[in-house]
Amino acid sequence: MNTYTYKESTALFERAVKVIPCGVYGHFSPAPYVPVDAYPFFADRAQGARFWDVDGNEFIDYMCAYGPMALGYAHPKVDEAYLNQLRQSDVNSVASPRMVELAELLVDLIPTADWAFFARNGADVTNMAVMTARAATGRKKIITIKGGYHGTTPWMQALGHHGVTPDDHVNVVRIPWNDINALKRVLAEEGKDIAGFISSPYHHPVFADNALPAEGYWQEVVDLLRANGSLVIVDDVRAGFRLHLGGSCERYGFKSDLIAFSKAIANGYALSALVGTDALRVDAARVFHTGSFWFCAASMSAAMACLREMQSINAVDIMRELGRKLTDGIVALAKNHGYTMKVTGELSMPYLRLANDDSMMLQQAWCGECTKRGAFLTSHHNWFLSTAHTDEDIHRTLDICDEAFKAIKEHPVA
Amino acid sequence: MNTYTYKESTALFERAVKVIPCGVYGHFSPAPYVPVDAYPFFADRAQGARFWDVDGNEFIDYMCAYGPMALGYAHPKVDEAYLNQLRQSDVNSVASPRMVELAELLVDLIPTADWAFFARNGADVTNMAVMTARAATGRKKIITIKGGYHGTTPWMQALGHHGVTPDDHVNVVRIPWNDINALKRVLAEEGKDIAGFISSPYHHPVFADNALPAEGYWQEVVDLLRANGSLVIVDDVRAGFRLHLGGSCERYGFKSDLIAFSKAIANGYALSALVGTDALRVDAARVFHTGSFWFCAASMSAAMACLREMQSINAVDIMRELGRKLTDGIVALAKNHGYTMKVTGELSMPYLRLANDDSMMLQQAWCGECTKRGAFLTSHHNWFLSTAHTDEDIHRTLDICDEAFKAIKEHPVA
Repeated sequence: MNTYTYKESTALFERAVKVIPCGVYGHFSPAPYVPVDAYPFFADRAQGARFWDVDGNEFIDYMCAYGPMALGYAHPKVDEAYLNQLRQSDVNSVASPRMVELAELLVDLIPTADWAFFARNGADVTNMAVMTARAATGRKKIITIKGGYHGTTPWMQALGHHGVTPDDHVNVVRIPWNDINALKRVLAEEGKDIAGFISSPYHHPVFADNALPAEGYWQEVVDLLRANGSLVIVDDVRAGFRLHLGGSCERYGFKSDLIAFSKAIANGYALSALVGTDALRVDAARVFHTGSFWFCAASMSAAMACLREMQSINAVDIMRELGRKLTDGIVALAKNHGYTMKVTGELSMPYLRLANDDSMMLQQAWCGECTKRGAFLTSHHNWFLSTAHTDEDIHRTLDICDEAFKAIKEHPVA
Repeated sequence: MNTYTYKESTALFERAVKVIPCGVYGHFSPAPYVPVDAYPFFADRAQGARFWDVDGNEFIDYMCAYGPMALGYAHPKVDEAYLNQLRQSDVNSVASPRMVELAELLVDLIPTADWAFFARNGADVTNMAVMTARAATGRKKIITIKGGYHGTTPWMQALGHHGVTPDDHVNVVRIPWNDINALKRVLAEEGKDIAGFISSPYHHPVFADNALPAEGYWQEVVDLLRANGSLVIVDDVRAGFRLHLGGSCERYGFKSDLIAFSKAIANGYALSALVGTDALRVDAARVFHTGSFWFCAASMSAAMACLREMQSINAVDIMRELGRKLTDGIVALAKNHGYTMKVTGELSMPYLRLANDDSMMLQQAWCGECTKRGAFLTSHHNWFLSTAHTDEDIHRTLDICDEAFKAIKEHPVA
């Protein structure tokens, strides 16, 4: 099995660093996340579950654009809906009927949703949610989970990060995931100041095992917050529509007050949505939210086509079953090679890590060996399955994984 | 001249309020900005300088989607570039060569720019700019202009707005526009805490006359901030590429440290860019900025096509000349009818207001009368010209304006 080289990617990266600080930034930045010689930096085209880099290398993509791609790149039905609306009207000086139709669809699809607002980024709607909670309660503080992620606005970045001030964090209280006692302590000590609690539906940090909610955890969170007059916000930006089409609350059997969606909602077209309950309608309307492109209609058409297709093919089950086959296969291969591969999180977006590899350098090396053979994987972040992945893709990927295990045994990490 | 009715818009708005708080939100919200019976709420299609609402009414559009549209809706060259890239790859798991090419173009086009970062919203890059200034200086406070606007993040919304806490404003110092003495006072009193100064290139508040920089104002701002070890950030989101293709700093003859662009950069496709000087490259790279859709390639292709077309046709001059004809015509018509129309700001995006109308109800009524005859105008916000507007459109609009003056004389505002 040949391994890829990245001549054109490297040449383009050298051009990039001249005109873009660090060349490629944020969660796409190669360092410190991946062994840089094993990864492509620039993509040329994409189709279904695959992309091709600027060197012509082909990859089965298990990052799915870090979540937005769920039905496969360039999905015909989603793209047709997008393009039809684009030809008619996208950006405009007044709103589009598509906004109303999409809000109606979300209200129909998502039990928590009595209304919806739309924006572009996930962080737009996590911020909307926090502002709505403050407006509704007249309180300032937000409880969140250590290691959680709700966008790169300063209040959510870790203290000590560049450009973040201690004042940005004065109203943020962090507690560990699945820790009801910690939540009770915070509510006992500063409950009168707590506007709300924000968390992803399960804990999917980077560089660490993912963790599902403990039995009864969410219902207890909801009961405690309600009793305190505070709101429960679910950040479903990453997991939304990969666990349950009605929102991930449905997967875990609880009702939140607000849910933030983005990523997979329109199969890769930029869109985000905040949905909430009837009780919050007036307070949500009072908060001033707006953006130059938030009313663009084409991505709203794409979202309707995407959600209807997901519903029609039962996309969640497909992604979960593909994830089961992939992770079962990798666990078995690892065992054959004398390793233990730990799978955490949800099967439609699993997090994998080799046991006894606390520095994660071995996992990083193994992901690099997979990637340079055509299975695009990262070591620090959960992967994503899409409905465009096939059993044949999984078989091909497992062959690649097998070769990658051989490679890391032959060239152990220092 | 017939006036429009809005049966379908009204019916759709009634559906909207059931599933979207306040029906249509943010800067597209009809109330309190416009006389609601004079305005369409939902658009069906758009082409060139025109859109058609869901009742089939045709409008010459002087809001240009509040800035993003600059070359006309559905511009063939921009759309071709967008669609070609969309077919190849838009969202992806790795970055696109288009990002590098667009950064190179901005560095070439904009004297201030030695590098560029990309995001989706204007507010993404004004926030990036503020974080970069804090990272570079190790200081916390940002000076901004009273009545200025840099997005709906809590630090920039007015204190007292719903969902905004006093803590969000602890590091924001507001001074009046064109007030060098106020700036000197702030620097004298708390200069050691000042990370930077952020302002639009000229003052374009809503519900108030716009104001150009006083002679020498910007150079003095730059000199004072530099001497204090602080950075100058220009928020060119609204005015960018309508005053000068090299950024509005060039129009007023000064050099800032950072410039935030969005709106017109890709003729309506969602994109924003932060550009900065070489001295800030390392600090900009250290701040963690990222978003799910920030690497989407198609809007970057659109931006390159848009900026090249603007350059090729000298778009700024076209928009300025159209603005001159339109505003000269309206001022003359107003005079014929016994009114004084005051024009402020820049001619490519002028702000108009009737004199002796402090409540602005007469101006609002007049804009409503224009709109329901087919010239889409608002009273609270500056208008925008595009290169798709023609002399014929201006003549037609002036006929409409004439009728609108007659109408407000016949039915004076209470």
